[in-house]
Amino acid sequence: MAHVYFDHNATTALDARVLEAMLPWMTAQQGNATSRHAYGRAARDAVEQAREQVANAVGAYPSQVIFTASGTEANNFAINGMTTKLPNTQIAISAIEHPCVTRPAEMLQSRGFKLAKIGVDAQCEFDFTHLESLLARPTSLVSVMLANNETGAIQDIARVAELAKKHGAYMHTDAVQALGKISVNFSDLNVNAMTVSSHKIHGPQGAGALILNKRVDMMPFMLGGGQEKGLRSGTENVAAIVGFGLASELAVNNLVNHAQKTLQLRQQLEIGLHNLGATIFAEKSTRLPNTSFFAFNNIEGETLVMALDKKGFAVASGSACSSDSTEPSHVLLAMGVAPDLARGAIRVSLDASNTTEQIDQFLVTLKQELNRLKQMVAMAA
Amino acid sequence: MAHVYFDHNATTALDARVLEAMLPWMTAQQGNATSRHAYGRAARDAVEQAREQVANAVGAYPSQVIFTASGTEANNFAINGMTTKLPNTQIAISAIEHPCVTRPAEMLQSRGFKLAKIGVDAQCEFDFTHLESLLARPTSLVSVMLANNETGAIQDIARVAELAKKHGAYMHTDAVQALGKISVNFSDLNVNAMTVSSHKIHGPQGAGALILNKRVDMMPFMLGGGQEKGLRSGTENVAAIVGFGLASELAVNNLVNHAQKTLQLRQQLEIGLHNLGATIFAEKSTRLPNTSFFAFNNIEGETLVMALDKKGFAVASGSACSSDSTEPSHVLLAMGVAPDLARGAIRVSLDASNTTEQIDQFLVTLKQELNRLKQMVAMAA
Repeated sequence: MAHVYFDHNATTALDARVLEAMLPWMTAQQGNATSRHAYGRAARDAVEQAREQVANAVGAYPSQVIFTASGTEANNFAINGMTTKLPNTQIAISAIEHPCVTRPAEMLQSRGFKLAKIGVDAQCEFDFTHLESLLARPTSLVSVMLANNETGAIQDIARVAELAKKHGAYMHTDAVQALGKISVNFSDLNVNAMTVSSHKIHGPQGAGALILNKRVDMMPFMLGGGQEKGLRSGTENVAAIVGFGLASELAVNNLVNHAQKTLQLRQQLEIGLHNLGATIFAEKSTRLPNTSFFAFNNIEGETLVMALDKKGFAVASGSACSSDSTEPSHVLLAMGVAPDLARGAIRVSLDASNTTEQIDQFLVTLKQELNRLKQMVAMAA
Repeated sequence: MAHVYFDHNATTALDARVLEAMLPWMTAQQGNATSRHAYGRAARDAVEQAREQVANAVGAYPSQVIFTASGTEANNFAINGMTTKLPNTQIAISAIEHPCVTRPAEMLQSRGFKLAKIGVDAQCEFDFTHLESLLARPTSLVSVMLANNETGAIQDIARVAELAKKHGAYMHTDAVQALGKISVNFSDLNVNAMTVSSHKIHGPQGAGALILNKRVDMMPFMLGGGQEKGLRSGTENVAAIVGFGLASELAVNNLVNHAQKTLQLRQQLEIGLHNLGATIFAEKSTRLPNTSFFAFNNIEGETLVMALDKKGFAVASGSACSSDSTEPSHVLLAMGVAPDLARGAIRVSLDASNTTEQIDQFLVTLKQELNRLKQMVAMAA
């Protein structure tokens, strides 16, 4: 049976070179990176080298990199930390943000902030007119993701940032899904803060970062020993940070190959999907090269995911991070997709390690499973 | 040159068996534990098995274990999450808590809570009379650590919890330093919430847990995809959680050996320290068997740490987590130790893997370095 992993936007396998770089920090006696003795200083040096690697990978200065334990933490940190010292005005986020941006923003409503959600069009493209009208009100923070985890749609963040800054708001972007798939440059994006994560780029789980312009009057989210210049407390996870550093470097080195390879595979996939009658979401937008989000009429996405899983293909329905829920994707609803079609959504997210043979096999299996499921639906009707 | 690690309260080496258990999750394609396909379900099963291991190790039910990325996060989570839904009354913590309890508690003052710090005596023993008088005021939360990271002093948490609950307050304990060194039983301690951490017990960095009684009306701290039953969002760090699970099991299995071995080594150490004229802090209190915190008159702790480091002995001055600071230990100040003596404080924290030979070597080196430093002080005077 096939064992094909097509869920790289959910998590990726650890690169063997990354594991090799991590192992010295997992096999011998190690120090706490805050300790002053030789063990501690060696750990500190390793963390600082990783900080340079991450900075180089995203077009930032090492001093702008604040390590966290995850992208989720970095987003919680950004939303809370960039607003705590500000008057309770407005926070504007897009309607298609990941829950780890949306929910902290919603929580701030209970502290007196007004929350505005900026719409997207049918192609998952950001509504600049909506943002401009919202910015007529005093606004503390705008947060818009660089690439959407479900559709792969890429937004013009530099333009959002320009508008936000013109109106005196801080600008944050969640670049977790973009890193390693398209060029991500903190300086060019002109944002005040940007979130990245390790396990989406063949680095280990357990490491992320908030890239932060020092002009932001930032409040820490995780309080304690004062690590990361007082902005993020907690013993540094040295092995994970070392792995994240190398994974960042490798992801950028492999970027062109990754983009070309996955785009080619996706084109092959989407020709087949069209032949099978799929609706491909945000198809005309500028998308991540590796991501295809689609649905078939009258076929439940969750059912299809389980059917494909039994045949050895790992794909997602909606976003993995909220797959406990059977609600239709909030991203598709924001795009105006009918809830019935949205419930059919399936996501294939590719990696350069996937092959044309896997796509061929997948399309054959998909056709079989669709026919089987349609027969079942017809019999039940 | 000796390479002797005497800083096990700061961090510990990963147990080879733990690494072995983690490696399958770091070498092959893995799924996101929230994903529904086979890769995701395998990751979920591994997380749930680790949850059982941690629960068994601390006398709790698996459903009471909420995984976090660190002890710092679990403490921030407890202090924030146990108070958010309560009226802004009083929070009472001990004066010797780790900064990752103290600082979140201080932050709550800005939201209207009154913060009370409960004193300790010269032996680092908790002042129950002080607590009782404080509890005359309406109190939301009491947080007192089970074992202090610096002195090793152990508090009677069950008694604190009884008092707290009698007055209608929630009770939290930070058991990070206690786990693996003394018996830690959530049920016997009778607290509502308890923090534990992986990297202090030969598990990986990047995993911790809040053990939480479900009767607490808890607010999440990390918001997003709704993992950990909605109480702690973020992609599960599967390898680290698997490692933490096994490390918990091993730590409990090795508890008696660890306690006997380290206590024997510490007795050997402290006889030598007395001969050299050291003051041993909290010496008469019930202490963790592995921890010795001491000072010499007119010798700066930081200087002695660096001198010993050059000779190959890794020890701490004050707590590693705040060693960027040169302020005297807040723990010693709370005990009424004179600031000048407190600045001399050195911590040796042992593991069962340390040896009597290492203690002998350490005492010889310590004597030499003390003599050298005293001569330097005399010459400078």
